[in-house]
Amino acid sequence: MPKGYNGTILRVNLTSGTISTETPDETLFRRYLGGGGLGAYYLYKEVPPGADPLGPENKLIFMTSVINGAPLSGANRYSAVAKSPLTGGYGEAEAGGYWGPALKSAGYDGIIIEGQSDAPVYLDVNEGSCEIRDAAQYWGQLADAVQHGLEEEIGDKKIRVLQTGIAGENLVRYAALVNQQRHFHGRAGLGAVMGSKKLKAIVCRGRKRMEPASKEDAQGVFKWFKETYDKAADPRHDMGTAQGVRHLDADGILPTYNFRDGSFADALEISGERMRDTILVNRGTCHACVVACKREVAVEGTDITAEYGGPEYETIAANGSLLGIGNLKHIAEANKRLAQYVLDSISTGAVIAFAMECYEKGIITDEDTGGIALNWGDESVALQLIDMIAKREGIGDILAEGVKRAADRYGNGADHYAMHVKGQELPMHEPRGKRSLALAYATSPTGADHMEAPHDPFYESFDPQGFSALSSLGLIEPVDRLDMGPKKVKAYYYTQLVWTLYDTVGMCDFVGEPINDLLIDKLGVYVSAVTGWNVSVWEMLKVSERTNMLKRAFNVREGFTPADDNLPERMFEPLMAGALEGVAIDKGEFAEMLNLYYDMTGWDRETGFPTKAKLIELDLEWLA
Amino acid sequence: MPKGYNGTILRVNLTSGTISTETPDETLFRRYLGGGGLGAYYLYKEVPPGADPLGPENKLIFMTSVINGAPLSGANRYSAVAKSPLTGGYGEAEAGGYWGPALKSAGYDGIIIEGQSDAPVYLDVNEGSCEIRDAAQYWGQLADAVQHGLEEEIGDKKIRVLQTGIAGENLVRYAALVNQQRHFHGRAGLGAVMGSKKLKAIVCRGRKRMEPASKEDAQGVFKWFKETYDKAADPRHDMGTAQGVRHLDADGILPTYNFRDGSFADALEISGERMRDTILVNRGTCHACVVACKREVAVEGTDITAEYGGPEYETIAANGSLLGIGNLKHIAEANKRLAQYVLDSISTGAVIAFAMECYEKGIITDEDTGGIALNWGDESVALQLIDMIAKREGIGDILAEGVKRAADRYGNGADHYAMHVKGQELPMHEPRGKRSLALAYATSPTGADHMEAPHDPFYESFDPQGFSALSSLGLIEPVDRLDMGPKKVKAYYYTQLVWTLYDTVGMCDFVGEPINDLLIDKLGVYVSAVTGWNVSVWEMLKVSERTNMLKRAFNVREGFTPADDNLPERMFEPLMAGALEGVAIDKGEFAEMLNLYYDMTGWDRETGFPTKAKLIELDLEWLA
Repeated sequence: MPKGYNGTILRVNLTSGTISTETPDETLFRRYLGGGGLGAYYLYKEVPPGADPLGPENKLIFMTSVINGAPLSGANRYSAVAKSPLTGGYGEAEAGGYWGPALKSAGYDGIIIEGQSDAPVYLDVNEGSCEIRDAAQYWGQLADAVQHGLEEEIGDKKIRVLQTGIAGENLVRYAALVNQQRHFHGRAGLGAVMGSKKLKAIVCRGRKRMEPASKEDAQGVFKWFKETYDKAADPRHDMGTAQGVRHLDADGILPTYNFRDGSFADALEISGERMRDTILVNRGTCHACVVACKREVAVEGTDITAEYGGPEYETIAANGSLLGIGNLKHIAEANKRLAQYVLDSISTGAVIAFAMECYEKGIITDEDTGGIALNWGDESVALQLIDMIAKREGIGDILAEGVKRAADRYGNGADHYAMHVKGQELPMHEPRGKRSLALAYATSPTGADHMEAPHDPFYESFDPQGFSALSSLGLIEPVDRLDMGPKKVKAYYYTQLVWTLYDTVGMCDFVGEPINDLLIDKLGVYVSAVTGWNVSVWEMLKVSERTNMLKRAFNVREGFTPADDNLPERMFEPLMAGALEGVAIDKGEFAEMLNLYYDMTGWDRETGFPTKAKLIELDLEWLA
Repeated sequence: MPKGYNGTILRVNLTSGTISTETPDETLFRRYLGGGGLGAYYLYKEVPPGADPLGPENKLIFMTSVINGAPLSGANRYSAVAKSPLTGGYGEAEAGGYWGPALKSAGYDGIIIEGQSDAPVYLDVNEGSCEIRDAAQYWGQLADAVQHGLEEEIGDKKIRVLQTGIAGENLVRYAALVNQQRHFHGRAGLGAVMGSKKLKAIVCRGRKRMEPASKEDAQGVFKWFKETYDKAADPRHDMGTAQGVRHLDADGILPTYNFRDGSFADALEISGERMRDTILVNRGTCHACVVACKREVAVEGTDITAEYGGPEYETIAANGSLLGIGNLKHIAEANKRLAQYVLDSISTGAVIAFAMECYEKGIITDEDTGGIALNWGDESVALQLIDMIAKREGIGDILAEGVKRAADRYGNGADHYAMHVKGQELPMHEPRGKRSLALAYATSPTGADHMEAPHDPFYESFDPQGFSALSSLGLIEPVDRLDMGPKKVKAYYYTQLVWTLYDTVGMCDFVGEPINDLLIDKLGVYVSAVTGWNVSVWEMLKVSERTNMLKRAFNVREGFTPADDNLPERMFEPLMAGALEGVAIDKGEFAEMLNLYYDMTGWDRETGFPTKAKLIELDLEWLA
């Protein structure tokens, strides 16, 4: 009889200073697998409705997964989950790197942080133990200083450090979390939640090794991956996520000037090719991953070194084309500062773009800015605003609240320029030119999120054997990226389950893409090999459905309704430049798309809540 | 690039005598895989609503599958599909043996028989060709004579012969089809459809070999099966399906005296153990299968030889306990006659039981029977009735119509003793003691059918690694066989998809059971290996859903409504004897169970038709 899975959750109450552990029944691990699945479960169970996201009732939950830390490319991601101060709803963000496997090596599958400390503290999680330690000396420090300080204090360069930054301390509503200075939980404002708890950092270290139930099967998948993955053919290895800039621009879907345009005159200046040929110094990676999509850049004559990693595509677009800035060196500087303050680079760029457009329209005035002219393309102003937001100085204090609250504050039609859903700023992907994103942004439990599902190019390149296709789910017909019909809804629904799964077992989407749809089957084999269960793709995708329903239910309990599943008004207006100039989303078609998605996933159209039959199917009767 | 799948369908119009072939797009094979999937597709598309099941508009469709004929235990089954003369709705029945692989070897994936011949004919399907030949000499002959006659006429003992019998010629509404005298398409009256077309037999022969896209992967599954299957531990190998008699009797769910009782005094006399120790002469098998669950019996001093195979459990119970007969030798004789006439042994036994109980109650009188006393337990009367039914002699002409029509004919409350759903007689499994069968019988598109899903013992033996469990679908909790709650409905819904899949790819359930839930994953690997596609369990079970919806839609088009999803009244009355004496199904609970099943599968409660969202998800918009 193969062994099952035993996991341990660490629980730390910062109000009382108590630390405990618990070993949930194996069934819980099998039903939720980890990551966003287990995170959503604990959040729903333990955080009372109406809790203040920045108060002691909110909990900050870190979850690895049953396979996290295994020697398999991509299987190193983990989830941070809390009620979001940005949306007031379900908040979740994943990160890769080394911290998740380090937590697992320390003997824990996850950590649940409760309450609030009076004074700054950090956690030292070390080989089956956990200590709450004084962090006064790290409070108010930049991320690099905190990382190095902790390494020195503990006397070990191999510790893995997760931290919130100055932005989080100052409760910037889109403050991020980061591990090892460059692996971000970017979205949902989880850095502010950690800041509100006066928890500066969590250090992990340990030597516990994962022992798969079947070494042979686990090694089989590892071997398959090594044989199948073609580094030379993967543009993400060569150029990182920035490889997309050139294509998106050509296709008219590179968010530019706060989503007014879909193409940017200086796109090639901020492209992956340009980065590779100029400032790139190294191709970094995460635990056990051969894809190595992480960039490391340095700019001569500046303090921008490989230590801060390098800008991802999202950072490039949000702090480049979105602001009318076509200079990679500026973006590298912005990237460094965002990393130092630990800010979400997407929301920060989107907030600055919002401010620049409002300034252009006369909604934000020199009086509001203290005399700073917020002109498109002004690099030094963009950098200044990053500083002011992180420190909540001047107009930065308003912008630190995110575009939704800032638009409410300014009025005068400012909301027209606030590109957000449920309060979370739009990522750098254009729903008018990739229509699955209309669904993704509108219905994601965390607000606008580009990581809900693979984007439309997946659906339109359907050679059944082809790159990126998910034919193994039976999606064997191409669907045009501008299509909003039934086939698009179905393709989105199925592929969303796959990406939810990735965020549940802690697998990286960027490993999934180059390997295409074979990975999903191999994941089933791998999860089975590690746990000793016999898990099919069917069961895994039902875990995804379960997880998505739970997140949905969380939001409904917090007062969200179907009316919140919407898009910024600009998405229904024509793009002003680029290959898709003049193209807008039709409101009627969008409404139909939403209705069908509700019906297909099993959400009631009136309440937005999962139907009873769906809850029963997914073992979630207790939510009803 | 691995090759895809190319299949050929043979189309024979018996009215015009035209023969043609067609090679559907690969997509069709991928969406339906074969068997009941492809069969239901063609039936829905091609048979007009309201068509007479015994008229020229009905079609008789035989479908193998993309893996049929592969050298893998169990992968030899194929489906016969037509509008059923018994129910007036969707009709389907599978058979194993050798005929499916022989059709494949002849170069065809399936045959669609259209129209009606004036005179008896048979088809000779031979290595990529097909001829319509005179069958006058075989008309009115017993199955053994037909088999031997065709072998002699063609001069080849290795031909594979599928035939309808005298019962089919006489349009007995539950006439069966048989290949090689012992592998039956038992249910739905398809033998009558073949008889109505004056098509006596289909001979298949050929030497075309299956070439899997990946030999290595296909051999891997084959090797896994050989290593995993434990013949010694499988009671089906030792005792065939008859192994169940003893257990069912002990559990109080052996249908006895027309479902009045759940236990039979002479159960051990008709048990698998008794058969093994007395009349068993050989353990037969199907193409490439090591399970070898087929029995071959002989009775000294009689003409019962191994040629007629041996009685399956269904035959034993329907012609034994159901009639109060506790004599294996009698059952072997009945089995021989049923095989010779090619009658469904379940419906035939059930019809006789109905007649015996009606006789006991005075509803059927000596006048009706022509003086034959239909007493419980009378072996010679039971045999006499088989003859009379097949030949439509005397009362046999009425009983040949099935219990529903016979009850209508006799009136006086006879319908209370007519154990059927939608006109098809109940198989030998007791819904009062295995509650998933309440759902199965009520909602199966073919009327009462015990092959819709694994029965309740599957759901209650949930060691996640254990025998028979389907834990790989996430069914990891035991559910009691008497439970009718949400967990039972879910377990039934999921496992039904698996068994539908088996009937679609032509895999035998009896291979699935001893190997337990690992098989479903391996099937995905195998289908992928053979076709070159990349098919996950998710995709395969969605094929099952698609298939089930199509069958449902067919019935709704024929006028079926949710009111037809019901059970015989006796199921709501207490069992009169056995371990479950006094136990009945609660009508209110049953109604709730049905409603939840409708909601979960995506059937509208009012119309019984699949919901629009479900149709879209399953690429069935064209049905709406």
